[in-house]
Amino acid sequence: MRAEIVAIGTELLLGQVVDTNSAFIAEQLAGSGIDCVFQTRVGDNLDRIVEALEIALSRSDAVVTCGGLGPTQDDITREAVARVMGVTLRRDPGLLEVVEKFFAARGRNMAASNAKQADLPEGASAIPQRRGTAPGLVCPVGEKVVYCLPGVPDELREMVGRAVLPDLRARSGEQSVIVSRTLRTWGLSESTLAEVVAPRLEHLDRAGGGAPTIAFLASGIEGIKLRVTVKAPDAASAEVALAREESELRHLLGTRVFAVDDETMEHAVGRLLLGRGLTLAVAESFTGGLIASRIVAVAGASRWFRGGVVAYAAEVKHEVLGVPPGPVVTAEAAAAMAAGVRRLLGADVGLATTGVAGPDPQEGRAPGTAFAGVALLAGPPDAVALRLSGDRARIRQIGTISALDELRRRLLAAG
Amino acid sequence: MRAEIVAIGTELLLGQVVDTNSAFIAEQLAGSGIDCVFQTRVGDNLDRIVEALEIALSRSDAVVTCGGLGPTQDDITREAVARVMGVTLRRDPGLLEVVEKFFAARGRNMAASNAKQADLPEGASAIPQRRGTAPGLVCPVGEKVVYCLPGVPDELREMVGRAVLPDLRARSGEQSVIVSRTLRTWGLSESTLAEVVAPRLEHLDRAGGGAPTIAFLASGIEGIKLRVTVKAPDAASAEVALAREESELRHLLGTRVFAVDDETMEHAVGRLLLGRGLTLAVAESFTGGLIASRIVAVAGASRWFRGGVVAYAAEVKHEVLGVPPGPVVTAEAAAAMAAGVRRLLGADVGLATTGVAGPDPQEGRAPGTAFAGVALLAGPPDAVALRLSGDRARIRQIGTISALDELRRRLLAAG
Repeated sequence: MRAEIVAIGTELLLGQVVDTNSAFIAEQLAGSGIDCVFQTRVGDNLDRIVEALEIALSRSDAVVTCGGLGPTQDDITREAVARVMGVTLRRDPGLLEVVEKFFAARGRNMAASNAKQADLPEGASAIPQRRGTAPGLVCPVGEKVVYCLPGVPDELREMVGRAVLPDLRARSGEQSVIVSRTLRTWGLSESTLAEVVAPRLEHLDRAGGGAPTIAFLASGIEGIKLRVTVKAPDAASAEVALAREESELRHLLGTRVFAVDDETMEHAVGRLLLGRGLTLAVAESFTGGLIASRIVAVAGASRWFRGGVVAYAAEVKHEVLGVPPGPVVTAEAAAAMAAGVRRLLGADVGLATTGVAGPDPQEGRAPGTAFAGVALLAGPPDAVALRLSGDRARIRQIGTISALDELRRRLLAAG
Repeated sequence: MRAEIVAIGTELLLGQVVDTNSAFIAEQLAGSGIDCVFQTRVGDNLDRIVEALEIALSRSDAVVTCGGLGPTQDDITREAVARVMGVTLRRDPGLLEVVEKFFAARGRNMAASNAKQADLPEGASAIPQRRGTAPGLVCPVGEKVVYCLPGVPDELREMVGRAVLPDLRARSGEQSVIVSRTLRTWGLSESTLAEVVAPRLEHLDRAGGGAPTIAFLASGIEGIKLRVTVKAPDAASAEVALAREESELRHLLGTRVFAVDDETMEHAVGRLLLGRGLTLAVAESFTGGLIASRIVAVAGASRWFRGGVVAYAAEVKHEVLGVPPGPVVTAEAAAAMAAGVRRLLGADVGLATTGVAGPDPQEGRAPGTAFAGVALLAGPPDAVALRLSGDRARIRQIGTISALDELRRRLLAAG
């Protein structure tokens, strides 16, 4: 089973919008075992959309399009796919009612142009909308199929999971269930990680065909992911196989696994604090608010996060956080900052960063030199050196996650 | 002149990497007046790369590829383009020396596989590397041309400006110079902005052919951009026309223009503070460190930024910043936070945010309710309401830039 993606919209060709939809669809296809060998982007031009669809259908079994289903004049995906199918559009009364109700529920007048979102190519079926107004389309073309999805990422993502993947799997005659789980790791290089899990990979290799497969995904600043994929006759046995494989890998990786699937480092830290009934305050120098801003992005963080101090100038470290006079790019300063912010903000735990983000050295220390301090309850604060590299932005981002990871592992060790 | 983009790499097809290179190249082509009507992504598969290149060359005059020029086995762009040209690869001694020197300069051994980066299809010429090891390629195919660029964004961007655009312009027979300047605005909707500049657009329309053109670019959370493009016989007269048009637009837009080209809101604020010899401290509630982290991203911010307090819990606002008892999602609280952080951190100017990011209401106020407070020197602090909408992440991001913009316009007004 081979599928292609055709992203539609002149804004993509002008480079005004980065095409994240195609990446999302591609990842979902790969996770379902469906090959995707070409992706095309084309503007809001009828002839060229038709050409792109015909080329894609000539070499693949299925095409997923995104964009061009809105109410404006340049939204012409419906027309293009109808031409490829060799049929006309007809207005669907049931879909029209949905669009009308959407506007009525918001007390807004429906512009006449919106009615075209109820048009369907003859022989196509609709994927009902749950978030917006434009339904998706399932358009058979001989033995092949074109799925048309709206370009709004939220609407598209929901329809891929609910309608496109199940339909593709049914068409491929695939009876079994393919499920993935991603273990997120921090603190090991890709090569070290590969060495650590090598015995397990060799075991799975020897087990052959039906065994789980494991892929390494480098995710930029968010650590390295291990994706486990299993194929099983039904959901229940897939879950058993997934759980067993996760347990084998966790046995090898220990606390290097900080989260599963979409959970972030700050979610993992929040969960640990919440479970222990502890509150957190942060003091940031070179990370300059990045730790706090990631934490505040977690809904419900107010239950465990009190706030922080961005101590960018050295005097703020001394005067507001009580760091003793002297150099500030040191482990001692990081520990004192952690203790100071914990006290100042009345939190149970203090976390602090100090370091050199660059481009210039500071206190004679090179960019990338950095320390994370932790003050846990009334215990003596202390700090560790972080080894960071890259440009200013990267040093700050890696420093942020490294500091959160340091706190995470200390909370785990404290039990 | 029509060009296409072919992005190469299996990681793109698997959705593990979002293809930002294509968007960048597309924007650059558009800015140079070169039409781009298709973009394709293909994996590291020789036959499919050749197929994608042949389809692209059959309908366009030029193709720009990115990716697949590295040293590993799956980097096969050179082989694919050689096959399309009907030639073989030869190793270029000059290029080999460059690669060898790159490794020698870093004290690293060069793996044998790196030598392939010195291979050129017969008849092609190299775009010398200035940042990495893989040179770009200019590959004539009959009257048409394929440019191959490395997938590393920094290296690619530099080569597009230095080699690809000038060569494309020369090939298109274009003698004149096309130059753009982008005015960045904040605080007006796209429709209001269009109304404000309508008289000027009409004037330019009447002036016809040789007049500057103006495009609106919505840039997500970074405001709306007005891109002015002029075409002139030489660089000096292009600059004159650009400066004149910028002045006309600034006359209509006033302080709504916060920056030009790549300058950000925080750069603009920093420039104003530095020019007035003032230092800044920030107090953040719902923005939770986003303002500070954007400021610290500006190299040299230490000359004007002292730091900040993330006052996420209400008690931190009262106890650390001296906000009077009572509700904290108010203009009064924002003003008190600004004055409090200015005093606590010993800065000349205090900027503060308080508000509801959602998803739940707070103090009976809906998500999107927010205030920005400003304390300028010893003057009485005050605050304005910000009107924000969207989800939690968007409310926080728009709130961040709105607060910085409020400070910017007050600094301008204070002279």
